[in-house]
Amino acid sequence: ANSILSSYGTTIFEVMSRLAVEHGAVNLGQGFPAGLEPADIIAAAARAVTEGPHQYPSMLGLPALRQAIAAHEKTFWGLDVDWQSEVLVVSGATEALADCLFGLIEPGDEVIVFEPLYDSYVPIIRRAGGVPVPVRLSPPDWTLPRAELAAAFSDKTKLVLLNTPMNPCAKVFSRDDLAYVAGLVQQHDAYALCDEVYEHLVFDGQDHVPMITLPGMRERCIRIGSFGKVFSLTSWKVGYIVAAPALMQPIARTHQYMTFTTPTALQAAVAWGLEHRDDYVRGLAGQLQARRDRLAAGLAELGYRPLTAQGTYFLTVDFSALGQEGDADYCRRLTTEAKVTAVPLSPFYLDRPGVETPRSFIRFCFAKTDAEIDEALIRLRAYG
Amino acid sequence: ANSILSSYGTTIFEVMSRLAVEHGAVNLGQGFPAGLEPADIIAAAARAVTEGPHQYPSMLGLPALRQAIAAHEKTFWGLDVDWQSEVLVVSGATEALADCLFGLIEPGDEVIVFEPLYDSYVPIIRRAGGVPVPVRLSPPDWTLPRAELAAAFSDKTKLVLLNTPMNPCAKVFSRDDLAYVAGLVQQHDAYALCDEVYEHLVFDGQDHVPMITLPGMRERCIRIGSFGKVFSLTSWKVGYIVAAPALMQPIARTHQYMTFTTPTALQAAVAWGLEHRDDYVRGLAGQLQARRDRLAAGLAELGYRPLTAQGTYFLTVDFSALGQEGDADYCRRLTTEAKVTAVPLSPFYLDRPGVETPRSFIRFCFAKTDAEIDEALIRLRAYG
Ligand SMILES: CSCCC(=O)C(=O)O
Ligand SMILES: CSCCC(=O)C(=O)O
Repeated sequence: ANSILSSYGTTIFEVMSRLAVEHGAVNLGQGFPAGLEPADIIAAAARAVTEGPHQYPSMLGLPALRQAIAAHEKTFWGLDVDWQSEVLVVSGATEALADCLFGLIEPGDEVIVFEPLYDSYVPIIRRAGGVPVPVRLSPPDWTLPRAELAAAFSDKTKLVLLNTPMNPCAKVFSRDDLAYVAGLVQQHDAYALCDEVYEHLVFDGQDHVPMITLPGMRERCIRIGSFGKVFSLTSWKVGYIVAAPALMQPIARTHQYMTFTTPTALQAAVAWGLEHRDDYVRGLAGQLQARRDRLAAGLAELGYRPLTAQGTYFLTVDFSALGQEGDADYCRRLTTEAKVTAVPLSPFYLDRPGVETPRSFIRFCFAKTDAEIDEALIRLRAYG
Repeated sequence: ANSILSSYGTTIFEVMSRLAVEHGAVNLGQGFPAGLEPADIIAAAARAVTEGPHQYPSMLGLPALRQAIAAHEKTFWGLDVDWQSEVLVVSGATEALADCLFGLIEPGDEVIVFEPLYDSYVPIIRRAGGVPVPVRLSPPDWTLPRAELAAAFSDKTKLVLLNTPMNPCAKVFSRDDLAYVAGLVQQHDAYALCDEVYEHLVFDGQDHVPMITLPGMRERCIRIGSFGKVFSLTSWKVGYIVAAPALMQPIARTHQYMTFTTPTALQAAVAWGLEHRDDYVRGLAGQLQARRDRLAAGLAELGYRPLTAQGTYFLTVDFSALGQEGDADYCRRLTTEAKVTAVPLSPFYLDRPGVETPRSFIRFCFAKTDAEIDEALIRLRAYG
């Protein structure tokens, strides 16, 4: 077995979801939404399945979907992209990340990542021959330590992997922070790999800023999105990549050997959704913000300390007033005893000698129905 | 850009399919079937899409599908597998291969491959840090050169990547050949990665023999299948891997970072198909055999020399009586002038100094309607 990949365990999302099922827990762990699926896009998928075709589409994605993605980029982010050379449809953002990292990294290249970080980043960076260089954001506001970031760049820096809005900590990078990162990227002749799957999930009137729209970054950014997140249909696994042709070429080459293509019917339905449901896309953040507030208020009442959650599906809380053990043990106890599942934050940190991993944070997913949120709060209150 | 992956061009299948569309050619190039889609499995998919759920399933695959795969292994191959620890659902066989190669190879490991070989093998082996060691089968019968194979093994041999039935050359490995390979694998403490996506497409009363069923191979084989091929629905991208738990573990770890999971509705429909359509699976080879014969007879009449095609969707012919140029140029000429698309065989060979790549073979896909086959033959006859 490969020594890098086999050194990692099963992803914490799957581990906690299995435990939740086993114990009949309300699952506020893994990030998937409930009660938000758009019925008409589902109907479009049923039609597309019924009508076919059922054979390989172009490995770049259905032309109709690539055109719809280009229109999306223009409508929402003011970005002009050529649908033929700058858009790639992939089987979810996880594949997108693998395509980009395997397609761009040469052995020894350094990739700057921000802790706490999504759990597929580091295994794939390392398997691709890259060296992850972590920069840790500071809670409770997940502040970007600028001097530390500047010092993390070297002449080996190939990529900065930036996730905004950010999972698990729900930070939305400000334009100012992004401009700072972009300046360093340009100065070091590096590139930015931007995981923006929560692009439309930003709260409190803030803006999502795609780094690719910043001056000088059009040719230096790869932007990754996910229609599973845009349309609250996470099992569909239709993602996309937008990048300038010179970057897209090695990524598409990689994609053809990773999955080759993505189910036609789901691509067609997503294209339908992009053409007809701008209203859904624009309305989603408002719905989720209300859920965030419902959960945050309830958890605060119970003695948890909610951190700021500016975007995504996720609310991180400090549980130290309620539990003394580490975050992983605490999540296990909540699931098996209180029957409510959250995800510990420590698996989103690298093991680093001499640097302590925070162990008093856990992440709740609020993209759930009010009934689920209320039931979780009732159970937590009863558990005490 | 990564120097390995960016050194490869766009896959020949996509290149030829695009050229076919551009020139209005009958596309007998890329391997996807026509007129064979099972309507009731499609209806099952439409129901599953309509009913949901639409959120992440287990990353190992839907339990119902994993159970159905275990039953399939028993029914068709007499193989007992534990659906919980020995079955993984993936987003197509291309992903399966990437999961296995990235998950099993350590840098410097040698992987024995058989030429002519499917075009994703070598790029991924090399990107995973492996060293492809080619062994060339001898046309016209694609004979296995046993002594050469034995000599190809070394103390660095980690895997033999074996494709049976074999694309592009339509060889079906005999039990005898397989036993020979298996003996070498055991002797060298290696493993066999078995791409068996055409497992049910074997003609003339021959048998497909999964290497995993051979003595001593249960713990040394990884078996890859594709429901796109089993049910003639190539755009669905639902594949599977069967392997002993010790092999499955690093593969599943890799899968979780490659795509994580596969669309729920399509998994559910495939499970329905496996539960209800054994008759389809058993009947498919007969239908395809008739199409093979129709195409082979027509091409022979025109002066092409068809090679034996014991399985798959593909018939390879020697075109040297009809064209003097190399196979790639000949395929381009056929597409643009005769308006019939085939695929050259030379891209299925490694560039090897001092070893000549055959250039007089092209591959036709016969998994097409009679009307398409007849139209292709009419055009080729008219072209002369
Ligand atoms: C790919 S499963 C994980 C879903 C998710 O993004 C999360 O829970 O953070
Ligand atoms: C993944 S596209 C190629 C389809 C195929 O298997 C072939 O044409 O050989």
